Amino acid sequence: MDSLAAPQDRLVEQLLSPRTQAQRRLKDIDKQYVSFATLPNQVHRKSVKKGFDFTLMVAGESGLGKSTLVHSLFLTDLYKDRKLLSAEERISQTVEILKHTVDIEEKGVKLKLTIVDTPGFGDAVNNTECWKPITDYVDQQFEQYFRDESGLNRKNIQDNRVHCCLYFISPFGHGLRPVDVGFMKALHEKVNIVPLIAKADCLVPSEIRKLKERIREEIDKFGIHVYQFPECDSDEDEDFKQQDRELKESAPFAVIGSNTVVEAKGQRVRGRLYPWGIVEVENQAHCDFVKLRNMLIRTHMHDLKDVTCDVHYENYRAHIRQM
Amino acid sequence: MDSLAAPQDRLVEQLLSPRTQAQRRLKDIDKQYVSFATLPNQVHRKSVKKGFDFTLMVAGESGLGKSTLVHSLFLTDLYKDRKLLSAEERISQTVEILKHTVDIEEKGVKLKLTIVDTPGFGDAVNNTECWKPITDYVDQQFEQYFRDESGLNRKNIQDNRVHCCLYFISPFGHGLRPVDVGFMKALHEKVNIVPLIAKADCLVPSEIRKLKERIREEIDKFGIHVYQFPECDSDEDEDFKQQDRELKESAPFAVIGSNTVVEAKGQRVRGRLYPWGIVEVENQAHCDFVKLRNMLIRTHMHDLKDVTCDVHYENYRAHIRQM
Repeated sequence: MDSLAAPQDRLVEQLLSPRTQAQRRLKDIDKQYVSFATLPNQVHRKSVKKGFDFTLMVAGESGLGKSTLVHSLFLTDLYKDRKLLSAEERISQTVEILKHTVDIEEKGVKLKLTIVDTPGFGDAVNNTECWKPITDYVDQQFEQYFRDESGLNRKNIQDNRVHCCLYFISPFGHGLRPVDVGFMKALHEKVNIVPLIAKADCLVPSEIRKLKERIREEIDKFGIHVYQFPECDSDEDEDFKQQDRELKESAPFAVIGSNTVVEAKGQRVRGRLYPWGIVEVENQAHCDFVKLRNMLIRTHMHDLKDVTCDVHYENYRAHIRQM
Repeated sequence: MDSLAAPQDRLVEQLLSPRTQAQRRLKDIDKQYVSFATLPNQVHRKSVKKGFDFTLMVAGESGLGKSTLVHSLFLTDLYKDRKLLSAEERISQTVEILKHTVDIEEKGVKLKLTIVDTPGFGDAVNNTECWKPITDYVDQQFEQYFRDESGLNRKNIQDNRVHCCLYFISPFGHGLRPVDVGFMKALHEKVNIVPLIAKADCLVPSEIRKLKERIREEIDKFGIHVYQFPECDSDEDEDFKQQDRELKESAPFAVIGSNTVVEAKGQRVRGRLYPWGIVEVENQAHCDFVKLRNMLIRTHMHDLKDVTCDVHYENYRAHIRQM
């Protein structure tokens, strides 16, 4: 099992994308060559200095543990001051967009993490077009970036484009609900959607297997394009390939979050203490939390940004030009 | 813990309402009196011969375990042939009313149990007035009964009035959702609503405590009238009074259902087998299932019918007369 401080310890190593890492391995043999082999190191130093940014959106109906999962992923409480709305307030509430930004630093590598939250989504009695404020938000970020990119002072463009959207599916839904289909179809051409089965500690393993299968089938049937993990390079080692296969087979990840540390078998772990046992968030036999964290932070953060930039943003530009 | 066959074993003893039972205790001292002390026995014999009926409605959004709970309560699979709808079918689906009737017999006492199910409730993107088909159904049963009661052949009136509605609240809701408030306010003057926290095996004890409190507060604040357990007779024994107090304090019951029998500590119990432990449906440290079953079958079935007859149906009649 991974230790509690794990995600931040790994950031340095992993934020730099697999390619940069591979290039760093060259270091040891640098001395035998002229000097251009140090170019990756220069890129590395520069990117460390500049810092990284990443914008993650979380969506799904209230109560599916969105904020708890974000907390568990980044070990940062973005929602300290959050007040839960009463049913009364929620009746009149519309979907809002909330942005929280935190600067995380580990071993000198800085990550500016922005979480875009969408409270109120799917909570109303009538949820027709409740994803409209969200698609509008995504479009506005593209628009802003497009304006900045076309302007003069291009050096310090603030990239607020949404790089990934974790979409929380209820574990009780017997598959996708109409509101899930509506949301994903409205967003799938604009943002990398990573669907998650939320609060998976209420499903026994066979139920998780069945639900995953059903969701995969329905995503297929409705022509929804969720984020596709890129093909694994053929020259990667067998271990990495195996991990990659497991990652792809586990989608949609069934996750459990927790902000409390409990004692299980003498070890202190993030978990949930039920009268019948302890759910360990980072135990791979209990859920796919570690897989999601690895994917998001260690292995695919760069690719998520690349796809946002090269596919979704380019689509937006093509669309603008047609108008 | 209660054995698996428990609910049916108890029906004979308990279906006859607390009053009839008390009167049966008179049996032993019958011989000292004239003869009218046997009247209760005559009533008893007659009612056994005639059989009992009970109509239970279950409502709440899909996936909250309504059919599983009904199965667990009556150990009768009413839904053998049920086919789950796909997201596609559910998009076009409206709320329907389905009626299942089973005849259960134990120790010669017959119970005709009717379950009224409301698939599709709350599943649409737009759930405005989604409780309308349900209120209409309840009204139609009153209307039918009223017509039969005013007619000539009153001996064999079929009573299809809904005696109790188990309303399933999502455990993830941070309290009541707007659709819950809408449903309960539309139905509370027509039927005995017993709110339940569904699938409580995804909440740790402190979360259950908080959610119960919040639901009680909100029910109060919105002026929703759920079924009130009657005052305990002052001449009941201390044990019974204690049980009654616990029953009232536990509302809304947090329940877990299961149709699978698993092995826990060498015993075969109804439960759910998680990688981190076994949830036992009938273990009172795990959930309030036994409390609900006792209330519904052993202690309050008669009162639920009385309140339906004396309060809800009389309200309906008063309402009709005004028109």
